Parts: sequence; C-alpha cells; structure tokens
Amino acid sequence: MTTNEAIKNRAWNFSAGPSVLPVDILQKVAENLLNYDGCGESVLEMSHRSKVFKKIMADAEADLREIMQIPDNYSVLFLQGGATLQFSMVPINLLTNTKKADYIVAGTWGKKAAKEAQKFGDIRVVASSEEDGFTYIPKVTKEDIREDVDYVHITYNNTVFGTHYNEMPDFGDKLLVADMSSCILSEQVDVSKFGLIYAGAQKNIAPAGATLVIIRNDLLGKAPEGTPIYLDYKIHADADSAYNTPPCFPIYVAGEVFKRIKREGGIDAVAKDNIEKAELLYKCIDESELFYCPVAKEDRSLMNVVFVTGNPEIDKKFIAEAREEKLHNLAGHKISGGMRASIYNAMPLEGVKALVEFMKKFEKANK
Amino acid sequence: MTTNEAIKNRAWNFSAGPSVLPVDILQKVAENLLNYDGCGESVLEMSHRSKVFKKIMADAEADLREIMQIPDNYSVLFLQGGATLQFSMVPINLLTNTKKADYIVAGTWGKKAAKEAQKFGDIRVVASSEEDGFTYIPKVTKEDIREDVDYVHITYNNTVFGTHYNEMPDFGDKLLVADMSSCILSEQVDVSKFGLIYAGAQKNIAPAGATLVIIRNDLLGKAPEGTPIYLDYKIHADADSAYNTPPCFPIYVAGEVFKRIKREGGIDAVAKDNIEKAELLYKCIDESELFYCPVAKEDRSLMNVVFVTGNPEIDKKFIAEAREEKLHNLAGHKISGGMRASIYNAMPLEGVKALVEFMKKFEKANK
Repeated sequence: MTTNEAIKNRAWNFSAGPSVLPVDILQKVAENLLNYDGCGESVLEMSHRSKVFKKIMADAEADLREIMQIPDNYSVLFLQGGATLQFSMVPINLLTNTKKADYIVAGTWGKKAAKEAQKFGDIRVVASSEEDGFTYIPKVTKEDIREDVDYVHITYNNTVFGTHYNEMPDFGDKLLVADMSSCILSEQVDVSKFGLIYAGAQKNIAPAGATLVIIRNDLLGKAPEGTPIYLDYKIHADADSAYNTPPCFPIYVAGEVFKRIKREGGIDAVAKDNIEKAELLYKCIDESELFYCPVAKEDRSLMNVVFVTGNPEIDKKFIAEAREEKLHNLAGHKISGGMRASIYNAMPLEGVKALVEFMKKFEKANK
Repeated sequence: MTTNEAIKNRAWNFSAGPSVLPVDILQKVAENLLNYDGCGESVLEMSHRSKVFKKIMADAEADLREIMQIPDNYSVLFLQGGATLQFSMVPINLLTNTKKADYIVAGTWGKKAAKEAQKFGDIRVVASSEEDGFTYIPKVTKEDIREDVDYVHITYNNTVFGTHYNEMPDFGDKLLVADMSSCILSEQVDVSKFGLIYAGAQKNIAPAGATLVIIRNDLLGKAPEGTPIYLDYKIHADADSAYNTPPCFPIYVAGEVFKRIKREGGIDAVAKDNIEKAELLYKCIDESELFYCPVAKEDRSLMNVVFVTGNPEIDKKFIAEAREEKLHNLAGHKISGGMRASIYNAMPLEGVKALVEFMKKFEKANK
C-alpha cells in the first residue's frame, strides 16, 4: 500500500483512547522512523541521554509551557503508568498534612481515583452523580469542602459519560488537583488555579505510554519515607523526567503535537475548532427524533459526545453499520452502553461531518 | 530522504539502551504507521480493547511463551515504569513471609535494586564486587544465603560493567528473582528455575516504555493491603496486562521482534550469532596492545562489551573518531568511563566487523 492509499483508506476513528492522531504527524513520524532527521538512528533506538533526544524532550517541554502558559513555578513531568498510577501518586505525595482530601466523583475514573486514595488517608466523596448515571457534574461550592483538607480532586472531563467542567470550579484557597486526561490541550485552562494536573497521553497528546504531570514546585519533596522511588514526583522533577529511561517515543510524538498546536495558532484556535465540531454533533443529536444525549446541557463535553437511541438493538445496529462506512469505535463504554463519539483535537471537522451525515441517513432508514 | 537513503545512512548504534532495533522491523513499522495492515487505523491510535490490538497482544505473548519456553504456570505481563519500578514491585509483592531477601550486587543496577528493597524489608547484600570496580560476578553458593529468605535477587547481565552470569547460579530451593533487562532473549534460560524475571524492553525487546515481567503464578496475590494498585502484579495478571491502557506501541514492536526470533530459528540460533559477534570483538580487544577489557574472562557479557585504553584522553578521541565513522554511542557509562559496545540481538555481525576494523585502524594510528 502506498502512503497515499494508506491515508485514503484511513477510517474516522472515534475511539475514546488510545485515539486518533493528526495524519500529518503520523506521516512525519513514519518518514523519520528509520533515521530521525538524518542523524543515523531511529527515535525508537535513541539513548535518552543523547544530545538529539535531550533536545526533543527539552523542546517538547518548552513548547508545552508556551501553549499552556505554564508558570515558572510548576514542573512538567513525563511519566509512565497512566492516570491509574496517578490515582496513587497524588495521595501519596499530597496527603502531607491532615491526610484528608475531598473527591468530587463525576464518573468512573473519579470513583476509581477516590477508592485508590482511601488507601493513603481520610478521603471523603463530597458529591457524586452516580445515582443519576453520571449524567452531570455534581455542583459543589467551597462551603461543601472540609476546611482542613490537603487537596480537592476533580475529573475535569469524564471520558465515559461525556461530561465536563464548563465553568472552572471555585474552592477558595483549597489545593485543586485535576485529572485532565481527556480534555488537556482542548481548551485553555489557567494552570495557576491548580496544584497538580495530570493526563494520560493517549487522548490529546500522544500514543499510549506517557503520562503528563504538571505540579507546583512547593508540592514536591513531601512524599513520606518508604515511598517507592518511582512514585515520588521529586525524583522525576530533579532529573527532568529522566531519572530512569522515559517513554521516549510518546514524548517525541507529544513534541510534534505541541509544535502543531503552535502552528495552528495555539490552544485558543484549537478550542474554537473543538467548539465548532461539538456544536455540529450536538445539534444533530438534539434535532434528531431517534438519538438523544442523556447529559445535562450545561455539562456536556466537547471531547466525548455520548448519545443513545434508547433501544440497545438499534444502538448495536448503528455501531455496526457505521463501521461499514469507516466510522470506527462508536460504541459507548461497556459501563454506559449506547454510543460515544470521541472528537479529540486530532479529529478533523470533516470526520464529524461524515458522522453527522451517516446519523441522518441511519435515522431516515430506521424511523 | 528515500527509504533506501535512510537505511544507507544509518549508523551502527552501540547504545546500551534504548538501543538498536532490526532494520526490517523498523521498515515494517514505518510502512504500517498510517494504517496498520489496512485496518484503517494506526497502531498508535488503536484502542487497547479493539479486536485488532487484542490479537497483537495475544500473539506477542504466545510467541514469547514459545521462544522462551515459558511454563504454563507463569504469567507474562507487559507493564510500565521500567526496571526502576520493578525494584519496588519485587519486594512489595514478594516479601510476604519473613520479609527477608538476599541481594547479590554485581553492578549499579543491582545496588539500586537492593537499596530500594530496603524500604520494604530486611535486605542483606550477600556479596558485592563493588570494591573491585564490579569487574566480576561475586561467587555465591547456597550456603551463603540466609536460610529463611523470601527470595534471592540477582542481575543476570550488568549493562554498565559488562558482566554476566555465564553459569546459572544454584541457590537450592530459594526463590530466585532476576533482572534480565540487558540479556533477555539473547540466550535460552530455564524459566522454571526462576520465581520472577523482569526486563526493561529497551534493549532486546522493543523501544523504551514497556517492562516485561514473567512471574510464577503462586507468587501472585500476596501484595500487602494498601499497595498502590498499579504495583500489584495480580491486578495486571488478572487483566492480561490491560487493567489500564498498556504501552501499546512497544508491545506491538515487541511482538514483531518475537516473530522475527521465531523466523530466525529461535533463541538458540540468536544465541549462536551473539557468541560469534562477542567472540570477534573480545578477540580484537585481547589481541590489542592499546585496548583491554577489565572484566574477568569467565564473567564477560555477550551483550555489553566494555573496554578501555587506560588513558581517558585516548578513550575520548576514540569515541569521537568512531562517531565520524558512523559508529555511534561507544562511550562507557558515566560511572565507569572508557568504552562500551552494546551488541544486542539487533546488532548485525556486519556492525561488529565495522567496529573491529575501526579499532584496528585506530590502534595503528595511535601507537
């Protein structure tokens, strides 16, 4: 298959993660795979201590700092283990004073994060929307938070249920920790409002295998004695994420993604495109007599658009027929069922248009 | 640059890790990068729950089981965090009875492993060759091991100092744990002699970002309460290494490497080539009047060949001039200095011949 055929025969990939990457980046990566930039080695074979790779990593961090406007008093870490390892690392490193933390549970991942944190301290679930099928973000004010917590944990975008904090929550002076796995880089956030942000790479950043952590420097160095060395943020911060061999390839692709965002005009430009894509899809759902979106309008995610017909058999038929039309991975998470279209940064408007067109066609045929 | 030019202009990469990969695999990966096997998606974008990726992962495991002859009562895990995370996971999961373990320290990594394990139990360094610059494997018999240890830990091949267990140690009925990061797949080992084997992928398996763990099933499920969930082997074993998103891309490349070993005639055939390569290089060193190998002959590694001139200035000149000849990454580890040629499975005989030729030329010019 030639490169052109490979591109032409690509499906629209609505996977929730690992998920679509920009085709131009894939092409560049492929072209450099045998010999990166003429240096004689592939990025896949390159020592993480080599000049070439150190530059790749330093550039990636610098570009990320620029596009996310990360203040100088924050460290940027590229780790391994995904959000799952962060579910442990956050409490181990941040439960340093009263060992209390409040968690707002708005989905599967927030629930898992809270459960894991209970191993390490006094964790309270302040609010959960579980009884209502996680169809909205629980509304919590600063008065709901315990006075003396070490931190408050939120999941900024819920991949499974398609909800999102469309307004920045205000918990006063409490230290805020956010899992941004499925919305990082999709919109500008004020990093200075957070003590720690973490995100698995496999949605908006890079292929699976890297985890981004942005942590305020005064929070480093407080892990208790006996903490497994890999789980201490300070170890990684002091070594510029190269205490041990980092996940080099995802970091390289992440760097290419960050450069691309710069070329596109920064995160605000990307966010504008994301709003356009999401509005198109939600409009189609809201106008439909077959599909509906169970999520509260004010909490809808721009990244993960959840919809159902109410009839699991029709849902199944939709997902199968969509696949025939090269619209891949539209099944909802096994917990929620129905459909989910993940339309991350790398999903072009054209892909959303193709989905909307198919939804209309399908509705007509299945009235 | 065309594919042919990219291949022609590749250097001989003697990096200790991340390190050289077979050029035919890089080429296949590049050709499939935009659209894996015509499925419409790149492996980099593929859900780890998809049929296509599940098959990639299942095939990789099956092929590894076949080539390493892994008995059925062992689990094969593809994790993240490198050997460094294993330095913690091993004691956390295996110090279950007396909480005692004996470590044989034959290099930097073994020393780090022992130090980390001390956080979790009563760890004794049985023997260390540190005072002699780690130039040999300390000889330890089963009588040296404490009677009631939960396990004994060895580093099977020492990447930094170029030593290797050329004879399988015998500690009687003690549970044996081995770090095989830099020699896995280079020779056949009897897996049934070990309780647990671990190896970072970035030497003989795949690009950085995956860690292989082979663990006897009766050792699973013994992590103490409160263990960070990612650090519990049983969690990963129960979920076929997909409890959370695995490092998909390195697993895919690993699968290609395993298939290639099968095509080449299995690990024994690979080992034969490795012996030929190493003998050629050691012969050149031993016959030289400029270079010498500080490692005890009976403990020499087939993977990491360490040599020096005894004059750091000449060493530096050698490394720089070698680079001009496209012989890359010949500097020794910063701890040991001198030179090191890592000649992993993927380094062709041709590369070793080019190095030997250059060494002879250099010696002539620098007598």
